[in-house]
Amino acid sequence: MDVFQLLDYAGVAVFAATGALAASRKRLDVIGFLFLASMTGIGGGTLRDLILGLTPVFWVKDPVILLVCAATALVMYFAAQWVEHRFTLLLWLDAAGLAAYAVLGAQIGLAAGVENIIAIVTGVMTATFGGIIRDVVSHEPTVLLRQEIYITAALSGATIHVTLSYFDVPAAISAAIAVTFAFALRGGAMMFCWTLPAYRRD
Amino acid sequence: MDVFQLLDYAGVAVFAATGALAASRKRLDVIGFLFLASMTGIGGGTLRDLILGLTPVFWVKDPVILLVCAATALVMYFAAQWVEHRFTLLLWLDAAGLAAYAVLGAQIGLAAGVENIIAIVTGVMTATFGGIIRDVVSHEPTVLLRQEIYITAALSGATIHVTLSYFDVPAAISAAIAVTFAFALRGGAMMFCWTLPAYRRD
Amino acid sequence: MDVFQLLDYAGVAVFAATGALAASRKRLDVIGFLFLASMTGIGGGTLRDLILGLTPVFWVKDPVILLVCAATALVMYFAAQWVEHRFTLLLWLDAAGLAAYAVLGAQIGLAAGVENIIAIVTGVMTATFGGIIRDVVSHEPTVLLRQEIYITAALSGATIHVTLSYFDVPAAISAAIAVTFAFALRGGAMMFCWTLPAYRRD
Repeated sequence: MDVFQLLDYAGVAVFAATGALAASRKRLDVIGFLFLASMTGIGGGTLRDLILGLTPVFWVKDPVILLVCAATALVMYFAAQWVEHRFTLLLWLDAAGLAAYAVLGAQIGLAAGVENIIAIVTGVMTATFGGIIRDVVSHEPTVLLRQEIYITAALSGATIHVTLSYFDVPAAISAAIAVTFAFALRGGAMMFCWTLPAYRRD
Repeated sequence: MDVFQLLDYAGVAVFAATGALAASRKRLDVIGFLFLASMTGIGGGTLRDLILGLTPVFWVKDPVILLVCAATALVMYFAAQWVEHRFTLLLWLDAAGLAAYAVLGAQIGLAAGVENIIAIVTGVMTATFGGIIRDVVSHEPTVLLRQEIYITAALSGATIHVTLSYFDVPAAISAAIAVTFAFALRGGAMMFCWTLPAYRRD
Repeated sequence: MDVFQLLDYAGVAVFAATGALAASRKRLDVIGFLFLASMTGIGGGTLRDLILGLTPVFWVKDPVILLVCAATALVMYFAAQWVEHRFTLLLWLDAAGLAAYAVLGAQIGLAAGVENIIAIVTGVMTATFGGIIRDVVSHEPTVLLRQEIYITAALSGATIHVTLSYFDVPAAISAAIAVTFAFALRGGAMMFCWTLPAYRRD
């Protein structure tokens, strides 16, 4: 299992956990947990595969992905009660998934042979779409509307990985650097309320 | 026209009717009825086909599907006024579509040669996504957030059909049993407020 | 660059501008502008390509599209402050994009060899889906729910183009007529509150 396979399962698991936490906030039943966790876990990668024409999509080819979602959902269903500040945990897991998926999505774009700018975009889409689906289906404002740096973290992770890969840095090292940076950036934004200047000119 | 073709048209028609009822609740014009009815009627199957890589999607290959949506929308536009308790009717039609599409989606997954667990998932997605689109576009909380059993009914229908098919039960019989069970489960949930234990542990 | 290439870039640019205006109303940062502008600009065409099985989708094959989105977003980020009545501008640009994309989407459907009714539907979807994504991601009621003629304008543009093409009117002329009519219809609807009889029968 190479680093990207690992990033894939990691991204799926953490996003699935955020979906399960959203389900707990909505007081859904265990099937609701499974559903929302799966949608969130596989949503971004599904869009990425559809856009690149890589169908059937990844989880159809590798059902283990769904088992990861299901296991995560069940664990959260029984464990979430002991989690204080559930929304904060959701945001931290979301940050981890954002970082992992931004780099994974970019790598899959590169592997599919698209141009670098497209690979960056597929990275950002993979990283953000699962959370968007989760928030929309939960009838919550999407995380994109939050003030702190969010998409920027995904964009930086994808850009770093694509750039380092362009300069022939080994994929695993490049990915490690990119994921770390993106997670640190999003994490720092949450802890210290880092923001880019928001549009306020009126 | 075999049983699955029938399930397909039935699922399209009843989901289209729920979209039209949502349009009537939003006071849309007749074109809005056509649009929302079509989106709801074909949404789930469209996602299913995209995920399985069966493109162009089913209604592109069989435009009759769109005529079914249009006819349903027009009938509802002129008939909805006589419908008391329109939201209740929407929920019952939604239950019928849920049952039909869960089994149809699972069958199409099986026909596409995916693993059984994936066929169950494509069944659930086919059954639920049209209603999600309807609710999101109508700016309503999605039906998934309702307390009574909903996804569970789709999951049971898809699982029963896939399981019976695995044991070589003739497809038509298997489908009839699965659709009946799923519809009865969702219908009973609505009538008697059946629920699974919701997440309430805090 | 033929007339449809032009319509494509025009549609992308104006929808991207509406996404950027939505971002300004939500006080997003510049990356949020880029993201929402791109999603809105390419959303409709992406759905169209997915449904027709034309993958990888258009902007993966032609990254200039994304540069158009990015440039538009940046211009709006710095220029929006001088725009009075920003929501009105959003609606007018949306009307222009609606007209351009309805005809472009129909033409791409025809070029893909689908039946005329399907080409009309792909036109309407291309024209409406970007705005739907923009509104849903911005957590706003979708523009479809507005009372004035909206989908009807897209439908008329797509229908006119498909009909004229059926009678062998040169594509450029047919497109010009269809775009003009659709834009005039939507524009008139906004100025004079043209509506179709809304569903009010209860």
